[in-house]
Amino acid sequence: MSEEHLETLRAAGGDAVAPPKERPATSRDARLLRRLLDALGSPPVRVTLWNGETIATRDPVPATIRIHSRAALLKLLLNPELHFGEAYADGTVEVEGDLVQLLEDAYHAMPPTRASSGLMRRVSGWLNGERRNTLAGSQRNIHRHYDLGNDFYRLWLDRDMLYTCAYFPTRQATLEEAQTAKLDHVCRKIRLRAGETVYEAGCGWGAFALHAATRYGAKVRAFNISREQIAFARERARALGLQDRVEFVEGDYRNMSGRCDAFVSIGMLEHVGREHYRGLGAIIDRCLTNEGRGLIHSIGRDRAEPLNAWIGKRIFPGAYPPTLREMMDIFEPQGFSVLDVENLRLHYALTLRHWLERYEHARERVRAMYDEAFVRTWRLYLAGSIAAFNAGALQLFQVVFNRSGHNDVPWTREHIYLPAAR
Amino acid sequence: MSEEHLETLRAAGGDAVAPPKERPATSRDARLLRRLLDALGSPPVRVTLWNGETIATRDPVPATIRIHSRAALLKLLLNPELHFGEAYADGTVEVEGDLVQLLEDAYHAMPPTRASSGLMRRVSGWLNGERRNTLAGSQRNIHRHYDLGNDFYRLWLDRDMLYTCAYFPTRQATLEEAQTAKLDHVCRKIRLRAGETVYEAGCGWGAFALHAATRYGAKVRAFNISREQIAFARERARALGLQDRVEFVEGDYRNMSGRCDAFVSIGMLEHVGREHYRGLGAIIDRCLTNEGRGLIHSIGRDRAEPLNAWIGKRIFPGAYPPTLREMMDIFEPQGFSVLDVENLRLHYALTLRHWLERYEHARERVRAMYDEAFVRTWRLYLAGSIAAFNAGALQLFQVVFNRSGHNDVPWTREHIYLPAAR
Repeated sequence: MSEEHLETLRAAGGDAVAPPKERPATSRDARLLRRLLDALGSPPVRVTLWNGETIATRDPVPATIRIHSRAALLKLLLNPELHFGEAYADGTVEVEGDLVQLLEDAYHAMPPTRASSGLMRRVSGWLNGERRNTLAGSQRNIHRHYDLGNDFYRLWLDRDMLYTCAYFPTRQATLEEAQTAKLDHVCRKIRLRAGETVYEAGCGWGAFALHAATRYGAKVRAFNISREQIAFARERARALGLQDRVEFVEGDYRNMSGRCDAFVSIGMLEHVGREHYRGLGAIIDRCLTNEGRGLIHSIGRDRAEPLNAWIGKRIFPGAYPPTLREMMDIFEPQGFSVLDVENLRLHYALTLRHWLERYEHARERVRAMYDEAFVRTWRLYLAGSIAAFNAGALQLFQVVFNRSGHNDVPWTREHIYLPAAR
Repeated sequence: MSEEHLETLRAAGGDAVAPPKERPATSRDARLLRRLLDALGSPPVRVTLWNGETIATRDPVPATIRIHSRAALLKLLLNPELHFGEAYADGTVEVEGDLVQLLEDAYHAMPPTRASSGLMRRVSGWLNGERRNTLAGSQRNIHRHYDLGNDFYRLWLDRDMLYTCAYFPTRQATLEEAQTAKLDHVCRKIRLRAGETVYEAGCGWGAFALHAATRYGAKVRAFNISREQIAFARERARALGLQDRVEFVEGDYRNMSGRCDAFVSIGMLEHVGREHYRGLGAIIDRCLTNEGRGLIHSIGRDRAEPLNAWIGKRIFPGAYPPTLREMMDIFEPQGFSVLDVENLRLHYALTLRHWLERYEHARERVRAMYDEAFVRTWRLYLAGSIAAFNAGALQLFQVVFNRSGHNDVPWTREHIYLPAAR
């Protein structure tokens, strides 16, 4: 991404409010603010209160936060993770400067989480109204995010509407190139062959299914419970004359039956819920042929933590990024063998940079479709996700597997990378 | 490997005893034998008892097992996993035909293990005299296997005495080529650079350390508690004039101190013991620089099981091949991030085929050094290991990691495979 683009991004991420006259911070409110900054590990930032009192943890800082009311400050003290997002969305907190860098610095400064105990996870889930992914629960959770309207996502996703981490062969690749490269990366990793049947769990707007059919000659059954996405995908399949090779099923992955040579899931596991991993494994076991291969692509964690409270409330209800250890619940009980794991977290940070850049260019149209709070909510979500992937608070795992003891697997991984394969 | 070589191997693996006259199996002993075969899942095999009674589970079979006494049959019924090895070693059980194929078929036929519960594991450990890997325990366990004598290992390992899974760029590569390729594979995966310091835990006869120094310009501190191996490695370092760049420390990995840019362990984790994984992680955390990378190469499992009882008793006391889930105890608590996992189990099967072939060529010399029971014990261990890796009962994981949130990592894995890198 060019420096010029980054400049646009920084400018766009910042709020253009007239700064109040800054003055030394000595009041009781300022002492509360100091306590807040201490609790957050003192990230590099300047904070200005409604009365002009200002604290800078060091100099220079990537951004200035303006807190416009005592109520907002008190809420931040109570639960910064949740209320920073809430206050940013309604404008009682504004950010001037580099929003992404501010958040990335905040991730790095944050003291190691105490939240990984089972108890803390349950409490956090309860406080934040965790939504369980039963069949009906998943339907609600997925509808909430993915059925916002294809027109909205079209404003800032790539041409083929891929809403998952891209694979950038080089950092200079365009988003379109990187999303196509991701689809090839997946197909090569499972060594997809013409005539094979692929089951896809959680197919988004259908780009993988259509790619696997047109470029690799596969037959694909692709499942999704987002009605808007399925309608879009079916329309694309019709336009491409692929109705007989690609079937888009409006249904839960738990309804899969029949047999497939390859099982692929790109960006669905985040919505499955830990308690359903064994069940997912059993469904793959039911469907996969003996020599079949599978790939699961998912956001993950280096250690178990609850989802960010604000993201869980406003963006992805019911979502959870698992650790590799937790993902093993899919594979171990069914006798699957993990062949390959790749961590692509920096590719997700770059993917999100492209999305945020396009989003900012389209923000007037987003405002016209929704409102200013929505514009700010999604900006913070995209910027915060860049920061989380860059800072290692989130990972992106691609896991390739097959049935234990079956030997029809590539001898090395060279075939994924040789220029001849590209 | 050529067909001719495989023929030699098959012939060598078989025992050349004059077969007793075979007759239908109707006696009480034969009924016991049928029960044994049923319990083992009826693998394809012919078994002949001391009295000539013969049972074939199907036709053709890869091998014939001759059981020379009722005592041997009864012991097999009691604990086939342990006593097949014991009886094979002392010659009361002999095998004619393809020993590797016989064992591989047996792995495939075996009913799914019930042994993965914590209780069964403890019972099994107790029955088989599990040796805990305390500092002194490790010393005893390692001495038992690795101090058998460099002369013994020289008979059947490659030129550089690598006693871990090789990496065959193609199946046709020689063992020497594949072991060198493995060392390069490891160095590339951690993107080792000139001038960097590598700590190696469990360095065998020193091949990796010397390779990293000569080919990559690294400084290496390599730890090993096997006195014979360290002596050999130091001699090689002297001969190559590398004393100032490679230090071989006769000591436990738990004694590591100082700072390294890369941490490497190839084939040691199997001897560390599950209860010490967190401790190993803490030692890596103590030594690794912020931008450092690590690689752990270890035999593993798709699901948790106790080590084969006979291998634990006769070959590797105190050893345990972990699952990926269990390996996470090294990484998660310290905030390491898993970047890459590769499963090379079929490369280990091929490595072992080369070793077994060389071993059989040297068997007269092995017999002269030890005795016939030793020759047979090690043949069964090598053949059984080929079978276990081919059948998926064992895996070989290479795990690359770094500190969570540190971004000085290769952008893709292409650099490992590009011809320019080789």
